[in-house]
Amino acid sequence: MKIVTVIPGDGIGPEVVESALRVLEALGTDLAPDVLDHVNAGTYRREGTALSEADFARIAASSATLLGAVGDPSLEHTDYVRSVLLRLRLGFDLYANYRPVRLWHDRLSPLRDAAHRGIDCAIVRENTEGLYSGVGGAVHPSSPWETAIDADVSTHHGVSRILDFAFSVARHRVCMVDKANAVRSGGSLWQRCWEAAAGRHPGVAASHLYIDAAAMRLVTDPGSFEVIVTNNSYGDILSDLAAALAGGIGLAPSASLNGTTGFGLFEPVHGTAPDIAGTGTANPLGAILSAALLLEHLGYDDEARAVRLAVGGAVAAGRVTPDLGGTLGTADATAAVLAAL
Amino acid sequence: MKIVTVIPGDGIGPEVVESALRVLEALGTDLAPDVLDHVNAGTYRREGTALSEADFARIAASSATLLGAVGDPSLEHTDYVRSVLLRLRLGFDLYANYRPVRLWHDRLSPLRDAAHRGIDCAIVRENTEGLYSGVGGAVHPSSPWETAIDADVSTHHGVSRILDFAFSVARHRVCMVDKANAVRSGGSLWQRCWEAAAGRHPGVAASHLYIDAAAMRLVTDPGSFEVIVTNNSYGDILSDLAAALAGGIGLAPSASLNGTTGFGLFEPVHGTAPDIAGTGTANPLGAILSAALLLEHLGYDDEARAVRLAVGGAVAAGRVTPDLGGTLGTADATAAVLAAL
Ligand SMILES: CC(C)[C@H](C(=O)O)[C@@H](O)C(=O)O
Ligand SMILES: CC(C)[C@H](C(=O)O)[C@@H](O)C(=O)O
Repeated sequence: MKIVTVIPGDGIGPEVVESALRVLEALGTDLAPDVLDHVNAGTYRREGTALSEADFARIAASSATLLGAVGDPSLEHTDYVRSVLLRLRLGFDLYANYRPVRLWHDRLSPLRDAAHRGIDCAIVRENTEGLYSGVGGAVHPSSPWETAIDADVSTHHGVSRILDFAFSVARHRVCMVDKANAVRSGGSLWQRCWEAAAGRHPGVAASHLYIDAAAMRLVTDPGSFEVIVTNNSYGDILSDLAAALAGGIGLAPSASLNGTTGFGLFEPVHGTAPDIAGTGTANPLGAILSAALLLEHLGYDDEARAVRLAVGGAVAAGRVTPDLGGTLGTADATAAVLAAL
Repeated sequence: MKIVTVIPGDGIGPEVVESALRVLEALGTDLAPDVLDHVNAGTYRREGTALSEADFARIAASSATLLGAVGDPSLEHTDYVRSVLLRLRLGFDLYANYRPVRLWHDRLSPLRDAAHRGIDCAIVRENTEGLYSGVGGAVHPSSPWETAIDADVSTHHGVSRILDFAFSVARHRVCMVDKANAVRSGGSLWQRCWEAAAGRHPGVAASHLYIDAAAMRLVTDPGSFEVIVTNNSYGDILSDLAAALAGGIGLAPSASLNGTTGFGLFEPVHGTAPDIAGTGTANPLGAILSAALLLEHLGYDDEARAVRLAVGGAVAAGRVTPDLGGTLGTADATAAVLAAL
C-alpha cells in the first residue's frame, strides 16, 4: 500500500481534489489517500501557519502528494502562499516542475490559423531557485526611501540538474529560454550550463530563445515546441500562457519532482478561483490529469493512460464544464470521466 | 530647429530607420536628424565599446533619439546590448517605457474568436530598475559552485513614478501586474505604492493581476485592458506578447521617456532580425510608428496623426511586408505610407 498525502487547500481546491480522488478510487489501485484538510487559509488565519512540522513529516513519509490549490484573497499581503506551496517545493527540493500542455481538442484552441493550433509540449520549470527562492528584503521599509531587493539566484548545481531533467523527458528537441542579453549574471551561467548539457545529450536538438521571443513564438507557432526549459519565473509565465493556448488553465496538470529522492507533488496549474468556489462549476480535469501524472510517476502506467483516454473522451464529447464550452458542473464532468474509464 | 539623434544600429535597424527618416523628411518639419551610424556591433568588436562619452553628450544635447535595433549574434555572450540600449535607458533615466499596442486590422489578429480580437492598450514598463538594473554578480565563477545573483530592485521612488505615469496616460483603467504572492519584497512595495497611486487618481479604475494570470488574460480577452503597468521584466514579456496578438512585433513602436527632463528615446519593439537583415523585407512600420510617437512627444501632434492615418491606410490596403501578409519589400511598404501621407 502506498500512501498519497492529499492537500485540498482553498477555493475550488477541495472540489477538484474530490474529483481526482474519485477517479483514483475507481481505478482500484493500492494507493491510500491521507487527507490533510486543515492545510488552508482558515488554519493560517487562526494559527499564523498552515503547514506544521508534523504535517511536513507526514508528507515526507508518504509516496507522493496531491494538492488542489492554495491561496486566499484576504491573505494576499501575507506569506501564506509561500508558507505552504513554496515551503513544499523548497523543503522537499522539488526542483523539476513538469507541466505538459496539450490541445485535447481543436475546438478548444483560441487560435485562428488551423495549421498552427496544435500544441503538445512540456514546460520544464526550475522550481527551487530563481526569483522565487525567497532570498531578499528591503531597506528603509515603509519610507519614501524604501528599496526592495529580490534575488534571482541561479546555481551551477540547480541549473545543470534542471537542464538534464529537460533533456531526459525530451524525445527530439529542447528549447532553453532565458534573458541573457539583459540579465547578465544568471544569463551567463544558464548559457554555459546549457552548452554543457546540450553536449551531454547529443541526440536531442537544442535551441534557444529569449523570453520575450518565446512568449511570441508560443502564440504564433506553438507546435514548434517540444520541451521548453527555463527558470522559475519564466516557467510560471510560459506555462500559464501555453495552457491558455490549449484551451485554458482548467485542463493543465503539473508535477513537482525531486529527481534524487523520487518524491513528487502533483497539482493543477490553476489557482483557487475564489470567484467560482462553491458554485460546483470548477473544471476538475486539471486535478484529474495531475492525478494521472502521479499515477505514472508511481509506476501505474496503464492506469495513467486509462485516465488520459477517459479525459480525452469526455472532452471530445463536450461533456465538460463551461470554461471548456460545456454545460456540466464539476460533479457531472467528473462522472463523464468516470463513465469513460 | 530641433535635433533628433538617430542610432540605426544593427541588422534590420538601419533599414527601418531609413524608412522612418524618409517619413519624417516628407512631413517637412524643422526636425534635423543627426545620425550616429557608428554605434553598432562592428564598432564594439573593434573598440570594445560602441557608445562613447562623446556620443552620449551628443545625444544629451539633442531633443530626442530614434533608434533602430541593437544586437548581434556573435556578441551574444558579451555586454554589447546592455552597453548601448541599457546604457541609454539607465543613463538618461528613461524610466517610462510606453508601448502602445493596437490591432490595426482585424485580418492581423491570430485569435479565432472575432468578438475577442480587438486590442487597443498600452504597456507601461518600468525601464530603469527591476531585474534589468544590472545589479548582480557571481561567486565561484566558472566552477561547479558558481552562484549567480541578479537583483530585482524596486524603489519607492521608481515604483511610484511609473505608477503615476501609467495613470497619467490612462483614460479609464489601469491594471497593475506583479507577482506579490511569490516575490515578496518587491511585491509588497509595488502593492503599497499601487494603493497609494490609485488613491491619487480616483477617476481611473485600478485593478490588479499576477503576471501569470495577465499573460493568460491577454490571450483570452485582450480587449479588457487599457493601460497595463508593470516592472521591467514583465513589461518586456507582456509587450511582446501583446504585439503578437496585434499582428506581430513588426508593427509595435515604443517610447522610453524621462518625465522630468522630457528626453525621449523612440524605437521599434522588434530586434535586429539577423535572419532577414539585408534582404530588404523588414517591416518598416514599427520604426515609422515610433517616429510618430517621437513627433507627438515633441509637440507635432498633427504630423503624428497623419503618420498613423497613413500607416492605417497602408495596412488596410494590404500594402505591407510579408510578416503582415503582404508582398511588399521595405522600400515599397515605406512608399505606400508616403503615398498615403
Ligand atoms: C534587447 C533587450 C535587452 C530589450 C529589452 O528586453 O529591454 C528588448 O527586448 C526590448 O524589449 O526592448
Ligand atoms: C501561487 C503561485 C505562487 C504559483 C507559482 O507561481 O509558483 C502558481 O502560480 C503556480 O504556477 O504554481
